[in-house]
Amino acid sequence: MSTVLFENTLSVFETPEGGFALKPATIAIANGLIAAIDNIPTDFTPTRRINGAGKLLIPGLINSHTHIPMTILRNTADDLTFHDWLFGRILPLEEQLNPEDCYWSTQLGLMEMLRTGTTCFLDMYFHMDHIANAICDAGARAILSRGLMGGADDAAGEQRLREATEEIARCQNRPNLTFMLAPHAPYTCDPGYQREVAQTAKQLNVGIHTHISESRREVEDILAQYGKRPPALLEETGLLTPRTIAAHCVHLNEADIQILARTGTHVAHNPVSNLKLANGVAPIPALRAAGVNVTLGTDGAASNNTLNLFKDLSLATVVHKGTSGDPQAITATEGLQMVWSNAAHALNLPNIGKLAEGYAADLALIDLSHPNLQPTNDPLTALAYSTSGHEVELTMVAGKILYENGAFPTIDADRVRREVEATCRRIGLRDKT
Amino acid sequence: MSTVLFENTLSVFETPEGGFALKPATIAIANGLIAAIDNIPTDFTPTRRINGAGKLLIPGLINSHTHIPMTILRNTADDLTFHDWLFGRILPLEEQLNPEDCYWSTQLGLMEMLRTGTTCFLDMYFHMDHIANAICDAGARAILSRGLMGGADDAAGEQRLREATEEIARCQNRPNLTFMLAPHAPYTCDPGYQREVAQTAKQLNVGIHTHISESRREVEDILAQYGKRPPALLEETGLLTPRTIAAHCVHLNEADIQILARTGTHVAHNPVSNLKLANGVAPIPALRAAGVNVTLGTDGAASNNTLNLFKDLSLATVVHKGTSGDPQAITATEGLQMVWSNAAHALNLPNIGKLAEGYAADLALIDLSHPNLQPTNDPLTALAYSTSGHEVELTMVAGKILYENGAFPTIDADRVRREVEATCRRIGLRDKT
Repeated sequence: MSTVLFENTLSVFETPEGGFALKPATIAIANGLIAAIDNIPTDFTPTRRINGAGKLLIPGLINSHTHIPMTILRNTADDLTFHDWLFGRILPLEEQLNPEDCYWSTQLGLMEMLRTGTTCFLDMYFHMDHIANAICDAGARAILSRGLMGGADDAAGEQRLREATEEIARCQNRPNLTFMLAPHAPYTCDPGYQREVAQTAKQLNVGIHTHISESRREVEDILAQYGKRPPALLEETGLLTPRTIAAHCVHLNEADIQILARTGTHVAHNPVSNLKLANGVAPIPALRAAGVNVTLGTDGAASNNTLNLFKDLSLATVVHKGTSGDPQAITATEGLQMVWSNAAHALNLPNIGKLAEGYAADLALIDLSHPNLQPTNDPLTALAYSTSGHEVELTMVAGKILYENGAFPTIDADRVRREVEATCRRIGLRDKT
Repeated sequence: MSTVLFENTLSVFETPEGGFALKPATIAIANGLIAAIDNIPTDFTPTRRINGAGKLLIPGLINSHTHIPMTILRNTADDLTFHDWLFGRILPLEEQLNPEDCYWSTQLGLMEMLRTGTTCFLDMYFHMDHIANAICDAGARAILSRGLMGGADDAAGEQRLREATEEIARCQNRPNLTFMLAPHAPYTCDPGYQREVAQTAKQLNVGIHTHISESRREVEDILAQYGKRPPALLEETGLLTPRTIAAHCVHLNEADIQILARTGTHVAHNPVSNLKLANGVAPIPALRAAGVNVTLGTDGAASNNTLNLFKDLSLATVVHKGTSGDPQAITATEGLQMVWSNAAHALNLPNIGKLAEGYAADLALIDLSHPNLQPTNDPLTALAYSTSGHEVELTMVAGKILYENGAFPTIDADRVRREVEATCRRIGLRDKT
């Protein structure tokens, strides 16, 4: 196991109040953990020393909502109505993807996330074994949730739930992976099925990941069908719990917000995807004011169209100012909490999301010499407002360097590009001439 | 003069309808111009051949509104109310900036723009001679406008206008520079002064650059003071013309939009700055529907906080979808028009903004191998939705390479960083210990 010493590197630490402070530090990495900060044991002999001059060390970003195998569908369905996007393009393409395709598309998505400083993500998709392989082969960290759709009396739905249980059992002991169940949304899972999934999650002792109130249409449909809005329905079926993380949550009224708050549900905010698919702007300041724990996610590359969490951080910290008229709505500090401490809390991973002794060595090193980070007047607000993500020069997960200066030591990047391109040809995304 | 041949490079061309098409092309650059496309003269002997495999060649982006010397104030005034931002932080810092500081801050801003594919920009500031020096020394292209404030009977205002006229006369023959007058805003220039500036612009045969209806407060104040809203006031004083480019234009009603349309005024949309300063979202779809020519600008780095036009392109092409509920509001194509053809038109520079024979060789080469641009399913929508700007590997202005793979051949980047840092220390932006 390699040991690394970051020497005299400007680093971001959490304050006791949950804010952030900067100071130059020397940080020792061993056994996948942050072994020591500043008081480095005299017998610590690093296999690699990294000079921190002109660099900023941050906890790796945590992406709380994505569909990583959809990376292959990036830029295949833009500027379409939601109906044409989903039924005309995405579903017909997705149907052609096999588990092997998901492996390579996952590795491509990992490359993008590692390249831009993300070290952990919550995913929702199918073919969990192959996704798990792709992540473990790369040495990355994730929470995998199997997308579930169906009805209580529907054999296909039952089979999906059984498969999810089996997948979790098979992947259980793989390194750096944990699991959730993902009832897709109130409009794709009927109430009976929602109850079954909630029960199964409890039995398996895993969290729940779902989409709630993404579009206005969803809220209207659920209200028409069940006489209540999505949060009330999901509370009744047991899907809203302190182990639940709900993506989107755009169309909420005050009662919806109170339901999310009192059930302890965490909200994964997806500002880029919500704007791009014309769904709107989630009421994040109101959710926070009600005490809801808010995190940040990219959603899939078919609706973002990146997996670069810096882009969502940047948008989350300006869009609420603009739509509320309050220039202090969602500050840089609050945005950073969403990608670090709030996310670690929501994902039930208490040893990630900050630079502290004993925490996982999940981190990113940013080169501050890029013109857009000069002069370096306030590195913390620069993370929200000036950083593109491409200034990351090194990303480490569990003490292992997975990205450095254009290279991915654990991923065969050329093969990933070739395999993904071959799949694009096969599923009809290239001229066949 | 160097000659360059881009060989077999996927390139973005304008279609006769004003949209864009992609095809692999071989493009010869000579005498600062695009000399030939595909039919390369047999006697053309390039001093440099660039292999285009895996690359995308685009016209350089055109940033239609910025204050480049403010780059030094990046991340000095974030998450503040507008009053605290302007009066508490920005103005006291700006007062300490001398012309030499503006030179170095301009060169830093140029580095950032060139690094992210911008080849031309419209600037509004003071100390025009030093800004012009910084730009000409770097070999870049810009439209400079002197910021003007004052009253018709106010000696300081008169002096500023006289100085602007003299500056333009002195800089007139410098390469790749043109000029405008910049009456700052209706709340900083009284109507008499506005008339004088409009007259002077006509005499000098230069365009007009101004801020209009940026904040709700501005509209209320102008309405209270003059009994009309800003566009009506500026139309009356002669500032709205087909040579006028107005930044922001956030708070407009239907009558305002009609005034901008019938006067032929161009609008520079600044979506990042407008959100960050909590001003709101400009009614761009309505302006376009009324026939107004819309362009895109970053605004200064003190309110964006970058000069990366890809960031505004990305936001402009999603924010109107999200706020209108229409997933086709401002498409990728429409966003690209704002940074290319629309901008060239607004800035009265008919030979930039597209790849065509006889046009200026202002262009950027993008490396498509970055994970966030893979797979390359649609390079045009990728420019709007997936590109951060940091995938640019080469930027050329007037046939000269000004940025390539981390290096700035015409700028002493280390000195720029040192000089800017020294100024930050002098003006109190660093601990003095």
